[in-house]
Amino acid sequence: MDNWLPTLTTATPGEGYDLAIKLARMSVKKTQGDAAVRDRLRPDYAENADSLIAVSAVIATHFATIAAANAYWSASR
Amino acid sequence: MDNWLPTLTTATPGEGYDLAIKLARMSVKKTQGDAAVRDRLRPDYAENADSLIAVSAVIATHFATIAAANAYWSASR
Amino acid sequence: MDNWLPTLTTATPGEGYDLAIKLARMSVKKTQGDAAVRDRLRPDYAENADSLIAVSAVIATHFATIAAANAYWSASR
Amino acid sequence: MDNWLPTLTTATPGEGYDLAIKLARMSVKKTQGDAAVRDRLRPDYAENADSLIAVSAVIATHFATIAAANAYWSASR
Amino acid sequence: MDNWLPTLTTATPGEGYDLAIKLARMSVKKTQGDAAVRDRLRPDYAENADSLIAVSAVIATHFATIAAANAYWSASR
Amino acid sequence: MDNWLPTLTTATPGEGYDLAIKLARMSVKKTQGDAAVRDRLRPDYAENADSLIAVSAVIATHFATIAAANAYWSASR
Repeated sequence: MDNWLPTLTTATPGEGYDLAIKLARMSVKKTQGDAAVRDRLRPDYAENADSLIAVSAVIATHFATIAAANAYWSASR
Repeated sequence: MDNWLPTLTTATPGEGYDLAIKLARMSVKKTQGDAAVRDRLRPDYAENADSLIAVSAVIATHFATIAAANAYWSASR
Repeated sequence: MDNWLPTLTTATPGEGYDLAIKLARMSVKKTQGDAAVRDRLRPDYAENADSLIAVSAVIATHFATIAAANAYWSASR
Repeated sequence: MDNWLPTLTTATPGEGYDLAIKLARMSVKKTQGDAAVRDRLRPDYAENADSLIAVSAVIATHFATIAAANAYWSASR
Repeated sequence: MDNWLPTLTTATPGEGYDLAIKLARMSVKKTQGDAAVRDRLRPDYAENADSLIAVSAVIATHFATIAAANAYWSASR
Repeated sequence: MDNWLPTLTTATPGEGYDLAIKLARMSVKKTQGDAAVRDRLRPDYAENADSLIAVSAVIATHFATIAAANAYWSASR
């Protein structure tokens, strides 16, 4: 897992968004290291509206960080 | 889905707000890829006050990012 | 609804706070488009302490954005 | 209520903190306008650990805004 | 309580972190002024995983503010 | 515990992420000082999807701070 996040730079906002999702997921992976447990928990949130919203909140926070890191992809401004 | 977010730039704060809603929704779409499940979950949050408030929180975080990306639409300052 | 948010600029922090409330409410309106449902849900949060606190959190996030947009109303500093 | 928030400037961080509390409370007041209802709800959160923590989160967000508005009270740095 | 927060400046990130904890706790103290009630509520959160996580979120928000106030302790960069 | 956080500087975003996890965990440690209680609570969150998401949110907030402290690891931009 050592080099899973070499940079926050992405080419586009869309790729930055995908990176935000990756950062959100990695927290779960690093807190619950057992893949079998994570698989078992998946329906608990993937089929629960409030859990999905909570996941969205985490992604939004990471997206804010990534957007700042990319100067909001200022070339497109 | 590749190019769904080419830029964070919008013409007005109102359009930036709509983009924030889009970003919030996309997280759910990317976490729960099955449209049938998402449709089934919709009443769970759309008819639940606390869920709607939680959605609002996610939108607020994305709106902050988009507002910064647009220099708070400084022309209107 | 097209031009409901032409600017984030307000004359005073107090007006900025009211705008933050408006932004928080608009998320609910745009997520649950049916006014009858929203009216039905109103007591669910307006008479529930935790819901009111959750609403406050959304307002606080929007207020942060609006305050930044107004350079924290720097004339008054 | 018109001029309840003329400025975000405070003399010290401690006064800024008190202002953050005021901003958090005002959201509840403006969302639930009926003082009798608010009084009835008070024990629901004031005697509930999770509610108190949730209130703290709102205060923390407002404090961040106020601290930025005061340049983190840079004179004291 | 008047001068409990004279400055956000700390010598190190570790001291800044402790100050963040203090700021988080002070919110509870100022919202629930009765020490006996607070003592009674302590096991409700100190022995509850979700409450402890919620406390952590508040601390994280305050730490962000304090870190900014200290220019992220830039001497150590 | 005195010098557990001498700096927010890390060599890479990945190391910054690990530091964010450390900051999130330290809050729990400092709020619930009894290691036996913490061990007992571990399955409560490590095997609960919503708790894991809540932990992720705390990590995301700390990561934002650390990223800013490292100028978003600008060398890699």
